[in-house]
Amino acid sequence: MATHHFTPSHFHPTIGSHEPVLRVAGGDSVVTSTLCAHGYDANETLVVQMSNPMTGPFYVEGAEPGDALAVVIERIEPDREYGWARTVVAPNVLDPDYVAASPPADNQALARWRVDSRAATVTLEEPSDTSLGRIRLPLAPMIGCMGVAPPYGQAISTATSGQHGGNMDYRGFCSGTTAYFPVFVPGALFQLGDCHALQGDGEIGGTGIEISCTVQFTVRIRKNAAVLWPGGENRHYIFTVGNARPLDQAVQHATTEMLRRLQREFKLDEAGARILLGQCVEYDVGNIFDPAYTMVCKIGRRALKSVGH
Amino acid sequence: MATHHFTPSHFHPTIGSHEPVLRVAGGDSVVTSTLCAHGYDANETLVVQMSNPMTGPFYVEGAEPGDALAVVIERIEPDREYGWARTVVAPNVLDPDYVAASPPADNQALARWRVDSRAATVTLEEPSDTSLGRIRLPLAPMIGCMGVAPPYGQAISTATSGQHGGNMDYRGFCSGTTAYFPVFVPGALFQLGDCHALQGDGEIGGTGIEISCTVQFTVRIRKNAAVLWPGGENRHYIFTVGNARPLDQAVQHATTEMLRRLQREFKLDEAGARILLGQCVEYDVGNIFDPAYTMVCKIGRRALKSVGH
Amino acid sequence: MATHHFTPSHFHPTIGSHEPVLRVAGGDSVVTSTLCAHGYDANETLVVQMSNPMTGPFYVEGAEPGDALAVVIERIEPDREYGWARTVVAPNVLDPDYVAASPPADNQALARWRVDSRAATVTLEEPSDTSLGRIRLPLAPMIGCMGVAPPYGQAISTATSGQHGGNMDYRGFCSGTTAYFPVFVPGALFQLGDCHALQGDGEIGGTGIEISCTVQFTVRIRKNAAVLWPGGENRHYIFTVGNARPLDQAVQHATTEMLRRLQREFKLDEAGARILLGQCVEYDVGNIFDPAYTMVCKIGRRALKSVGH
Amino acid sequence: MATHHFTPSHFHPTIGSHEPVLRVAGGDSVVTSTLCAHGYDANETLVVQMSNPMTGPFYVEGAEPGDALAVVIERIEPDREYGWARTVVAPNVLDPDYVAASPPADNQALARWRVDSRAATVTLEEPSDTSLGRIRLPLAPMIGCMGVAPPYGQAISTATSGQHGGNMDYRGFCSGTTAYFPVFVPGALFQLGDCHALQGDGEIGGTGIEISCTVQFTVRIRKNAAVLWPGGENRHYIFTVGNARPLDQAVQHATTEMLRRLQREFKLDEAGARILLGQCVEYDVGNIFDPAYTMVCKIGRRALKSVGH
Repeated sequence: MATHHFTPSHFHPTIGSHEPVLRVAGGDSVVTSTLCAHGYDANETLVVQMSNPMTGPFYVEGAEPGDALAVVIERIEPDREYGWARTVVAPNVLDPDYVAASPPADNQALARWRVDSRAATVTLEEPSDTSLGRIRLPLAPMIGCMGVAPPYGQAISTATSGQHGGNMDYRGFCSGTTAYFPVFVPGALFQLGDCHALQGDGEIGGTGIEISCTVQFTVRIRKNAAVLWPGGENRHYIFTVGNARPLDQAVQHATTEMLRRLQREFKLDEAGARILLGQCVEYDVGNIFDPAYTMVCKIGRRALKSVGH
Repeated sequence: MATHHFTPSHFHPTIGSHEPVLRVAGGDSVVTSTLCAHGYDANETLVVQMSNPMTGPFYVEGAEPGDALAVVIERIEPDREYGWARTVVAPNVLDPDYVAASPPADNQALARWRVDSRAATVTLEEPSDTSLGRIRLPLAPMIGCMGVAPPYGQAISTATSGQHGGNMDYRGFCSGTTAYFPVFVPGALFQLGDCHALQGDGEIGGTGIEISCTVQFTVRIRKNAAVLWPGGENRHYIFTVGNARPLDQAVQHATTEMLRRLQREFKLDEAGARILLGQCVEYDVGNIFDPAYTMVCKIGRRALKSVGH
Repeated sequence: MATHHFTPSHFHPTIGSHEPVLRVAGGDSVVTSTLCAHGYDANETLVVQMSNPMTGPFYVEGAEPGDALAVVIERIEPDREYGWARTVVAPNVLDPDYVAASPPADNQALARWRVDSRAATVTLEEPSDTSLGRIRLPLAPMIGCMGVAPPYGQAISTATSGQHGGNMDYRGFCSGTTAYFPVFVPGALFQLGDCHALQGDGEIGGTGIEISCTVQFTVRIRKNAAVLWPGGENRHYIFTVGNARPLDQAVQHATTEMLRRLQREFKLDEAGARILLGQCVEYDVGNIFDPAYTMVCKIGRRALKSVGH
Repeated sequence: MATHHFTPSHFHPTIGSHEPVLRVAGGDSVVTSTLCAHGYDANETLVVQMSNPMTGPFYVEGAEPGDALAVVIERIEPDREYGWARTVVAPNVLDPDYVAASPPADNQALARWRVDSRAATVTLEEPSDTSLGRIRLPLAPMIGCMGVAPPYGQAISTATSGQHGGNMDYRGFCSGTTAYFPVFVPGALFQLGDCHALQGDGEIGGTGIEISCTVQFTVRIRKNAAVLWPGGENRHYIFTVGNARPLDQAVQHATTEMLRRLQREFKLDEAGARILLGQCVEYDVGNIFDPAYTMVCKIGRRALKSVGH
């Protein structure tokens, strides 16, 4: 149960079977850092010119195809004072007629947010001339992009997501949540990056408040877990994740996976799983900006505890 | 500020410019009852053979096209002991390959839930042989279908939804919420029905726990509100609603309407509205079973209160 | 087998159970006229201020729910010299990023096309300053919107489409094609309008070349046809039509209906129908501008003739 | 202008920056062979166990990012007597309710088609007990999957498609067509495979008639072509290709690219391009089975020739 402190020096714009940067065992913890989505580090210095550069991959000894890799997210801490964000709403989440009637948007304009980790707030510093003034909001750090090497030697851009995880931008991937991923290659090859100090559902601005972070997590291997899609759990919920477009298809992946999970992991029969889902399912929206959208299917632990009584 | 007690005797399978059953004034309250989605009343007697029969329409004096009709939901009370629900998960929310590999589903099979309004619980009575046993869950009554007469003389089936409202099956349409609708015809012609004792997000079983109810609501006219889509507010959130397929398009309608609402009603400039949405928007999933799906775009009141400080 | 000459004086912006304007028998022909999509007649005089005004409904004696109403399109003849068209490409068929980066489009600007029925050409007269010059293209008249009264007393806007037909804007609905529709109410109540002198696939400009026309058609009743969606046939193909969003769902409706049709009408077994579709199906795109999109599923008569040999 | 005869010995299940198998110059022709989608060669011998194994990549000297690689398809000749095909219709192109009501489908069952290149026919041999009998259809060979290395070091599964091309399954990619692709890496790195003796639109069975082939093509470099998506031309049409889900988004990519192409390559102004598209655009459906769907946007050469006269 070692704790590894790893300082990355090399980053990837894809999630794939890249050379591992560190080998860890199941149960080990890793403390490492992530660049912001534009490749800047804790000193606001440009380290790599790529989008969503990934730290890793970490090779987890003993993880085999068919297993799941669980990642307990223990800490996500912004390691610099300023985060940035785009100032538009992405046109793909707006009515086409509204977009067509609007003047051209400035995709390059960036807001600058001051991040105060001690006070647990973010404060808008620029632009300073909007009606928001210097709005102050609660800090809520999360991991925007993480996943494991996909099968067939694929290397998938960190601009999108799939069964291997990727750029899911789910606010629920925060401290206190355990995420898991289907393992496709020996060692799983876990990568992470693209942390946000705060983000609305869907990352509809095309960014959250983008910032470099120190992240601590612990990896665990779930043998023969037979999961097809990422998922996870926290204090109140278990959840499954579907990544696809349109959102309808992401719903299909996440809901089908939950139907399987309730039977496999919680020993419900299919009839029971269906009835429970019908009256208790909840959905959260992950990324709806990228080529693949993310939908999260949840069941409350309270409902699960009521089963069979 | 009268309170009208209205016992319906006639029901509609469409929302349209039907003969009003009652004329009320802005500020008036109505106490009335709704049949369950199969047309059974408080005595479990079949009253009409139609899907989602609507009570109403109620003509609201002074409501004119261009106004919004606000409906303060004050009470939704199941008025019989048993509700029913389908036992499947709708195939449109499952992976096509999963559905294709499954034995044919029984769409006609119904679960029977005992509804205890005093204890505020629902208990599964039939089928009694699933792994759920006699699972007991918290009662959470809501209005599945409501809306106002659409424009151009349309009469729209209560199986679907649109700018006029309709079968949105949003769990947030519960007691304590104010819903509003764009007014298209003089008097607005408000109709409601299809209440549920409980329902998961999306109504993915094709039903919630379907039950007849006593409903109390108060109507208010918001003059020249210029809203294009339904919306509402509760203690913690303001929200807008988009109804369309795929979900992506429902997202577009709801998000665009929120962008407009933040400017019109909360006096944000467009730059501020965009930045706020990017970091604070939340989405809830309404119906994802019907021809049109429902997506709800929310902003927390707390975030709104932080604006400009 | 009468031929009725009917001059309309009243028009509808919805397809529904409106008062019939004429009662005809199966086998009868009707010669009538349609206004253009903005409500102008053969004299370019504004007759009604509505979108896609419909001529009809025609009550077909003996048509009952469960039957299909076949409409043999015999003639579509522009009855004035000029048609108009919008000059934009609808933003819903363009990349959101492209639309966002473009200056606001002018939805009101109209092109004016001279229609020469004798020469069978259309010629662009205005705007005269584009790179197209006075481009001349072949005339290809078609019916943009037609259908029968939907069930449950619905009245559905002619801006959209569904199982009853409606604004499908399929170029294949031209002279020489037989269209059919499922009958939902006694007499079927056929309505038609919105003819185009020419139109690209999808009506992606939001209009074809809009013009008033003289239309001749013959109605036939197909008893107990048990069709769920519109369809048709011409010299080379049989086809089925699905109307929904997204296009994927329109594909599902049309393909499923074709699978049923091949079995019901052409006596293929399901295995044969599936194999034939896999190697021989073709798709045409109808309207992709309206709330519901239209996809056409076709099988060539030549392939059908090869069956069983 | 050399003609290279290349016999592949190594195959890839992804399109990416793999080691080139041959270096050719612009203007050179290549005669090579492709395995069938299950990895069998001309002798019906299993060569590799992967889906859609690709021949290549071919490095084209002088091709640089920003160029387009044009591939003139000169010959696609089945090199064995039998092709195979799945016998189902994929559930994603059928109504979910229809699929749910059907008995489980057999995805593994394969039809066997005899391919007679001299007679230019395909004949169904197995199953022999369907209503199709030994149906005989015209041979129409096409390339199912081809493309160039995507950017950012991605390696993309041949089960899907994107801006780099991939598994587009467009019937128009046949002899006589020139396809082109945006070049993302030096040398373009062209790969091809997955040929079909015949296929319906959409590859809705999940396969065409899968067969190994001899393919001859000539490569040409179009310097600074600035294309974003694949496209092509044949005797009657020019076309652009969009790959995405849902089909609506594939339409957006293809239509936007055509709007750009008409301006860039055919010197239309934007107003002219829009008007021309509105009245003359045609769409073809490529793959609608894979994770990404394919839509083809076409303009007839005849319409283009009418421009400006």
